[in-house]
Amino acid sequence: MNPIGIISMQYNRPFVAADFAQLGRWKAAGYDFAELLVPEPGELDLAATRRALDDAGLGVVLAARVNLDRNLTSDEAAKRQAGADYLAYCAETAEALGAKVVGGPLYGNPLVFAGRAPHAVPESLRQARVDWCVEGLVKGGDAAARCSIRFGVEPLNRFETDILNTTRQGVALMQLVNHASVGLVLDTFHMNMEDDDICSALREGAAHMVHFQANENHRGYLGTGHIDWNPVVRTLAEIGYTGSISLEPFRRRDERIGIPFAQWKPPVKDETEELSAACAFLKNLITLNGGRK
Amino acid sequence: MNPIGIISMQYNRPFVAADFAQLGRWKAAGYDFAELLVPEPGELDLAATRRALDDAGLGVVLAARVNLDRNLTSDEAAKRQAGADYLAYCAETAEALGAKVVGGPLYGNPLVFAGRAPHAVPESLRQARVDWCVEGLVKGGDAAARCSIRFGVEPLNRFETDILNTTRQGVALMQLVNHASVGLVLDTFHMNMEDDDICSALREGAAHMVHFQANENHRGYLGTGHIDWNPVVRTLAEIGYTGSISLEPFRRRDERIGIPFAQWKPPVKDETEELSAACAFLKNLITLNGGRK
Repeated sequence: MNPIGIISMQYNRPFVAADFAQLGRWKAAGYDFAELLVPEPGELDLAATRRALDDAGLGVVLAARVNLDRNLTSDEAAKRQAGADYLAYCAETAEALGAKVVGGPLYGNPLVFAGRAPHAVPESLRQARVDWCVEGLVKGGDAAARCSIRFGVEPLNRFETDILNTTRQGVALMQLVNHASVGLVLDTFHMNMEDDDICSALREGAAHMVHFQANENHRGYLGTGHIDWNPVVRTLAEIGYTGSISLEPFRRRDERIGIPFAQWKPPVKDETEELSAACAFLKNLITLNGGRK
Repeated sequence: MNPIGIISMQYNRPFVAADFAQLGRWKAAGYDFAELLVPEPGELDLAATRRALDDAGLGVVLAARVNLDRNLTSDEAAKRQAGADYLAYCAETAEALGAKVVGGPLYGNPLVFAGRAPHAVPESLRQARVDWCVEGLVKGGDAAARCSIRFGVEPLNRFETDILNTTRQGVALMQLVNHASVGLVLDTFHMNMEDDDICSALREGAAHMVHFQANENHRGYLGTGHIDWNPVVRTLAEIGYTGSISLEPFRRRDERIGIPFAQWKPPVKDETEELSAACAFLKNLITLNGGRK
């Protein structure tokens, strides 16, 4: 069965050594791996983190953190170089932690979280960004190959980036990059906004998927929104996806007027029951729909 | 049957006198009204616009344009006042154009389209924003009553504002505002992202709805995304919603890598066939599901 994981941001951001006790609780709640943000230098001791994961019996998948200064699609060469250097750092960090996949919007160019508004892009700049993106991802893929890991490029919704929004665009990018160490991460939170149909998109992206994120439309716990999980899980089985699936339920149940939903907030209560139920819900659905062993 | 409308941004932004010929084409495509952005002073001659709508046989619903400087929830009193003044301007403009509803995120505080990143909000500021919002909307409601129109407050997704994201929050705000001339606009594009379930949310918001926007998850034409329209339309009939329904299909079918999806773009081809089909699709579904005559 697909390994099921939980993102560290469900609990804390950044996730630091003081949070290691959480790893055992996730294991007890049924999870197989933790999805950690790629630690910035000094944020986590890599050897100690690897031991803590091992002690808890958890695997690990990494999520990269890009910004406007480490940005494969920047129009400034130094920032593109910083983006490529960051991918090499991610690959080496993954190797040190024992992770096999580093996912995320590796192409860069964040919008809302960088305080950047959408704006028109001249065709020459759009084409240049595609070229820069491919060039950076090929370099990243070479670094990944040296470290025996794979990169997963994740399309995000239109408000989070102006580079890659749909699965179809992701597949088109994979054809340009054409590197065995570079694939796609697909996330139902973004697919729900941008793809015509989540299941059709999964079939389109199937050949490139290196990681999958099962998130509700509103990022609450699985089963509390309107994503229709039965056909999603059935489609994963049909396309033979045996890879990792992580949950990223970090929206809090707080609907007071004026609460900024897009701003990360720590949990305000023990969520063990929801964590366990969401994991078991997904694992049972995979079993019921014939997921590969 | 509910009047069905089309937003002017489907064709041009801003919509100006040179675009009036489009009104007759929308009528011919089956639409009953145009949803126009509230024109800025001097952008449109109001009497001429009203005549053009009349000549085309179209009604009109207005959509307000807020920004950080006309902003009911600003922490600067002058900007809150400008927000209240703008609502009075909207009400008078609506009266001049013969519109009965002005909708939109009237509370202000845009995020991504104002180049503003989400950030944590201290509890005292959150509460102050709620108070400012209620105060401004009550003033706006009084202006609306004087002009015999109604305001419709629209929740937007988490990336577009940090004030009002879910229908549930909208209903809570209505209870605080408690003004006969202030209701809610609900839009399936945002509901798809933020509400647990679109149909349940429609039932929660039913008593306050003054306008409804039927948009696909990706803002393409109805039927090209994954919103399940049958239960949505059936729910509108069940709750007895007889009001206006507008379509806002201004995403273009352009999935080249690096195209900024969130940036408005004009149509690049004649979309008459899609416009007619989307209108007829919705009208037929309303008929089939027992929509009120």
